[in-house]
Amino acid sequence: MSLREALRVAAEREDANVADLQAFLRMPSVAAQNLGMQACAEFLAEHFRAIGCDHVRLVPTAGFPVVCAEVRGESDRSVLVYGHYDVQPPEPLEAWPHPPWSAHLENGRIYARGAVDDKGNFYCAVKAVEAYLQAGRRPPVTVKFWIEGEEEVGSPNLSQFARDHYDWLKCDGMILQDGGEASDGRTEFNLGMKGLLYLELSVRKNPRDLHSGKAPVVENAAWRLIWALASMKGPDDRVLVDGFYDNISPVTEAEMACIRQNAIPDQVLVDEFGGAPLKQGLTGPELFKTLYFEPTMTVCGFDSGYNGPGQKTVLPATAKAKMDIRLVPGQDPQDLLAKVKRHLVAHGFADIAVKTLGGAGLPAGRTALEAPVAQALLQAVTEEWHGRKPIIKPSVEGSGPGSIFSDILQIPWALTRFGPKEALMHAPGEYTEVAGYLRGIRTIIKFLQYFQDWE
Amino acid sequence: MSLREALRVAAEREDANVADLQAFLRMPSVAAQNLGMQACAEFLAEHFRAIGCDHVRLVPTAGFPVVCAEVRGESDRSVLVYGHYDVQPPEPLEAWPHPPWSAHLENGRIYARGAVDDKGNFYCAVKAVEAYLQAGRRPPVTVKFWIEGEEEVGSPNLSQFARDHYDWLKCDGMILQDGGEASDGRTEFNLGMKGLLYLELSVRKNPRDLHSGKAPVVENAAWRLIWALASMKGPDDRVLVDGFYDNISPVTEAEMACIRQNAIPDQVLVDEFGGAPLKQGLTGPELFKTLYFEPTMTVCGFDSGYNGPGQKTVLPATAKAKMDIRLVPGQDPQDLLAKVKRHLVAHGFADIAVKTLGGAGLPAGRTALEAPVAQALLQAVTEEWHGRKPIIKPSVEGSGPGSIFSDILQIPWALTRFGPKEALMHAPGEYTEVAGYLRGIRTIIKFLQYFQDWE
Repeated sequence: MSLREALRVAAEREDANVADLQAFLRMPSVAAQNLGMQACAEFLAEHFRAIGCDHVRLVPTAGFPVVCAEVRGESDRSVLVYGHYDVQPPEPLEAWPHPPWSAHLENGRIYARGAVDDKGNFYCAVKAVEAYLQAGRRPPVTVKFWIEGEEEVGSPNLSQFARDHYDWLKCDGMILQDGGEASDGRTEFNLGMKGLLYLELSVRKNPRDLHSGKAPVVENAAWRLIWALASMKGPDDRVLVDGFYDNISPVTEAEMACIRQNAIPDQVLVDEFGGAPLKQGLTGPELFKTLYFEPTMTVCGFDSGYNGPGQKTVLPATAKAKMDIRLVPGQDPQDLLAKVKRHLVAHGFADIAVKTLGGAGLPAGRTALEAPVAQALLQAVTEEWHGRKPIIKPSVEGSGPGSIFSDILQIPWALTRFGPKEALMHAPGEYTEVAGYLRGIRTIIKFLQYFQDWE
Repeated sequence: MSLREALRVAAEREDANVADLQAFLRMPSVAAQNLGMQACAEFLAEHFRAIGCDHVRLVPTAGFPVVCAEVRGESDRSVLVYGHYDVQPPEPLEAWPHPPWSAHLENGRIYARGAVDDKGNFYCAVKAVEAYLQAGRRPPVTVKFWIEGEEEVGSPNLSQFARDHYDWLKCDGMILQDGGEASDGRTEFNLGMKGLLYLELSVRKNPRDLHSGKAPVVENAAWRLIWALASMKGPDDRVLVDGFYDNISPVTEAEMACIRQNAIPDQVLVDEFGGAPLKQGLTGPELFKTLYFEPTMTVCGFDSGYNGPGQKTVLPATAKAKMDIRLVPGQDPQDLLAKVKRHLVAHGFADIAVKTLGGAGLPAGRTALEAPVAQALLQAVTEEWHGRKPIIKPSVEGSGPGSIFSDILQIPWALTRFGPKEALMHAPGEYTEVAGYLRGIRTIIKFLQYFQDWE
């Protein structure tokens, strides 16, 4: 049986698998700084070729290339493995215990930028496939690797790529590995991501800042933007833009059951938030339902007039605010943009200009726990965590390309996490644990087998 | 007759008067930079002594010294001359056609920081008194010079000085000269200044900025401050703080008559404002009534979250706004501060902290055109402008220490302007015109005579 053989190979090759990950982690690949991107993509492609993948190629995009590879499986079933080879900038360098490109191994930890996000996570699938191939077998299902280089800069070309390569990407299921375990040592299972629309609202009332003595007779850009924003959301946090809550998919009983089953103590969340107090009255399952399913409108920045030390009696000519809207299923970013613009005009704020930053926005994406891909992965994860089920989140509070998978590709998907609990993602000192990485490889080896026949 | 003799002396000494002003302008005296302050004060005191003043002294304050001097007059009547020897910082130096401390004379203009604001203005009174003394006469009324060194930094010690030196300062009238002519070549006559209360409103909701995905369950400092501010003033510009408009002294018929008489075309105001459009519907006397008599609440600055380029999905932990309130007669700054604080608590914004910047605030101050000091100065000004009456403003839109004169000292006062129309006060290239300076000297010579007997 190929599963047992693949697991045996993985056990024999633990040191090699660690060394291979270290070699990969030593390739800098910071998309935001255009640092090492082409070299890292080529390194990865070469590794895919070396382990025996077919159709390995760097596909150019408007940004950094996507690395694609494929291994035909023993069955007709296919799984798409999404990951990203780009990483966050490592600065500040002096805050690292070991240099970010050293992949230094010490006490079972590998220190490197990208150790968890995402190189050390998606490599589990690479090594799982390799285990089957090294055992002289094909993997139980066809595996396609879709490894992009722009995740840390918002995946601006991913939806276009999905449309352009729909036929190749289309599989029976899709898996993603990213991030680390929850604080109680369980891993997570994410089945949904919110969407995102990022807006900049700005207004200019006068050619230049004026002495504030003129205030009785000329308009003030700061006040205009304050009133416009206050018209869009009230102190009860309810968004007042007409139609904002239209067509939102209701939270299903299955999703609520998930939340009830997985609820962690409120205090764990408060600790995760660095001690930020929760809104009054929010607790238990209701807290998590709100966190995962409530769409939001957030002022991320507001700048107007004089903000230096002391007093300056100035009447600001301009004001600007940044705002993100996090969407839930049923909401469409372009529809919301139109509604925001209509709201401003209807409420007397036609002077407020609205533009989008970071593209046209992304809808929310959600997949179903019932899909074979999710069930097979859940089985593998539960086994490798010794019967401890993951925290199953029907959605997360963050935004991501879930809708590209759910809506454009229309593939059921599941995301889990093989990193350690305090992985310091996006922070100095990012590391992964060797034991967790090897467990991730075993998990994917099992998943590939279970998925073959899962009904 | 001493008036004729003083005018003759002034005519003979025109070159000397210009040279004396140039010498004074060459003494840097930037209060904000503590540049040359003591030396300039001593230079001025020495000049008072040189022209024959008595009781010349530098009076220490918590900040820079006040220069006081006195000349006994021929009558019992007395006038207080207020001015300031400190000037604005001259930067950017490269934007000056001639260096700011050169007092360069060219084509009838003297270029210097302080040429108009205020050295070249209050020196008219110094030279007027000197003209009487040089003619071998005492001036018709006793003149006391009260020349402070902190006007450009908000006169933080002036009200204390007025209380401490009440007996010496107490005169039958008071004059101030500052600034330049209106754009139509008339000078101005100002009989009131608004008060000022400067606030900083701030709020912290969380220990640190959070990923904006947390928005459904934690509070956002930017939104809190936006809502708090929107509760304080609505889009119709009406201040909603309970009691804000209480006890405001009504605009008198005499004041409205002044405004109607002096109204300039709206477009002149728009031009003065650098093209800033006027609030809809404001025109004619109503425009100026609003400008001079309406109290205001102005957001001068608002800062929260991320305001750099591009998008950052951040939930701001803190937000801060600067706000000035310009008071009209009847309003008390400490009373308004208490009302703002009460409003915030009553409207659910007890989390917004309020502090004052620049001290306890200043009420508005207004004086009456009927006072002999104003009528005598009006007569002198009208003569020197060849029968063209000044624009008489019952108040100005700016704030100033008028209440110190009106309320603490309880002296009727009048402010006029001897500088040219585009004097570039506070800007690079500040200059005064020799002709205007000499006319200012003649004006004060006449005023001192007319004030002696004006009923």
